[in-house]
Amino acid sequence: MTASRETLFQQIAGELGYSFDGEMKIGGNSAPLVRNGKDAYISGQIPRVGNTVVATGRVGADIDLDEGQRAAKICAMRALAILRQSLGGLDQVRRILRITVYVQSAPGFTQQSEVADGASEVLHSVFAAAGGHTRTSVGVYQLPKNAAVEIDMIVATESEAEPGA
Amino acid sequence: MTASRETLFQQIAGELGYSFDGEMKIGGNSAPLVRNGKDAYISGQIPRVGNTVVATGRVGADIDLDEGQRAAKICAMRALAILRQSLGGLDQVRRILRITVYVQSAPGFTQQSEVADGASEVLHSVFAAAGGHTRTSVGVYQLPKNAAVEIDMIVATESEAEPGA
Amino acid sequence: MTASRETLFQQIAGELGYSFDGEMKIGGNSAPLVRNGKDAYISGQIPRVGNTVVATGRVGADIDLDEGQRAAKICAMRALAILRQSLGGLDQVRRILRITVYVQSAPGFTQQSEVADGASEVLHSVFAAAGGHTRTSVGVYQLPKNAAVEIDMIVATESEAEPGA
Repeated sequence: MTASRETLFQQIAGELGYSFDGEMKIGGNSAPLVRNGKDAYISGQIPRVGNTVVATGRVGADIDLDEGQRAAKICAMRALAILRQSLGGLDQVRRILRITVYVQSAPGFTQQSEVADGASEVLHSVFAAAGGHTRTSVGVYQLPKNAAVEIDMIVATESEAEPGA
Repeated sequence: MTASRETLFQQIAGELGYSFDGEMKIGGNSAPLVRNGKDAYISGQIPRVGNTVVATGRVGADIDLDEGQRAAKICAMRALAILRQSLGGLDQVRRILRITVYVQSAPGFTQQSEVADGASEVLHSVFAAAGGHTRTSVGVYQLPKNAAVEIDMIVATESEAEPGA
Repeated sequence: MTASRETLFQQIAGELGYSFDGEMKIGGNSAPLVRNGKDAYISGQIPRVGNTVVATGRVGADIDLDEGQRAAKICAMRALAILRQSLGGLDQVRRILRITVYVQSAPGFTQQSEVADGASEVLHSVFAAAGGHTRTSVGVYQLPKNAAVEIDMIVATESEAEPGA
């Protein structure tokens, strides 16, 4: 018998040493998630835990690849936490369609894909085949609050919702 | 009685001191808007009025946060102007699903979310609850024509259209 | 009688001097394409041919606009090659909805739209009206493997597929 998505989600939270059970605070006057039919859009997530951005600086200078991957995992976990709260549980996720991974990069740092692998690993671990996703990874010049990584997602869900939901 | 979306749109245009009634010129050989079922994709908009990009340079160096927010408002208004022309009016907008806000940033500038708030404010003002949207804000190195901000959108509309429409 | 999309695709491949018939290798642990109903998402493509990234460096410094446009064409051809393999042929493409073009830019380089025109030209050539698309072009600081350009796509197809497909 395989572990439930919720169990796998909590395992990764435990490995990261953070809880993702509270409300996910997001910056600015936008919504964490908007549904459209069976699709759900999730706003760009930075590695914020509570009120603290736990991974800042340029990957490849201020922080290394390992720390960048860890930052990407936290961003992905935040997105899943938002899905979980909005949809009432991770079993409502049918397929991760797209993630875009923005890496605040040092000049000459070209391992954005490897940083993004941190997020992809979370998705594969929690959702197995349903976690298979398309991905775009780019190195940006600056990110909000000096975050090392920012990730947004588009997700297919099991049930229909009005765009206003 | 609340003001119509058209009235609110024109009020913001007046506050910005520009008209968004003419055809929105866009660069390159792409389309301003493509519909797909009830969804509409809008190309990245820079703060161009007529033939002039009215906000150029790096936010945090050449222009300040206030001017960056104003640039974001103009980008958002251009997107709405394109929606308005393509759909025959802003009442056809059911929900703003996603905006991505690219800010041409000075080194060390980390207020991309605050810049993006300018665009979000326009959406909330014109559409009220239907303007609630997901958002990704990043700081890029360069933008076309040295624009300070570029914004694209995905929108849910009221009526179905063929992808060829 | 007009040439088939396959013929036009092969003509452009010939002009570029590369074959796009083999399996498209992509970096990292993500999928090249994920379908959702009639839509298909394609992962960010860099100008990789086999195991080699054939256009690297900053556009506007290490490589010029012409070479940047050529890189954008190769990215677009890779995306079409993935569509072709996944859908069983390019006739399944109903409309190109969105492309996002990330250009690894030199400081002060502002012709990201002109670089992106290379990709748009491919889409118009192969698909005619169905190739009309929305586009966002931005200049990023770094790209994976020092690629000069990266492009992702969202496409409307003719036939429905489960999100797990």
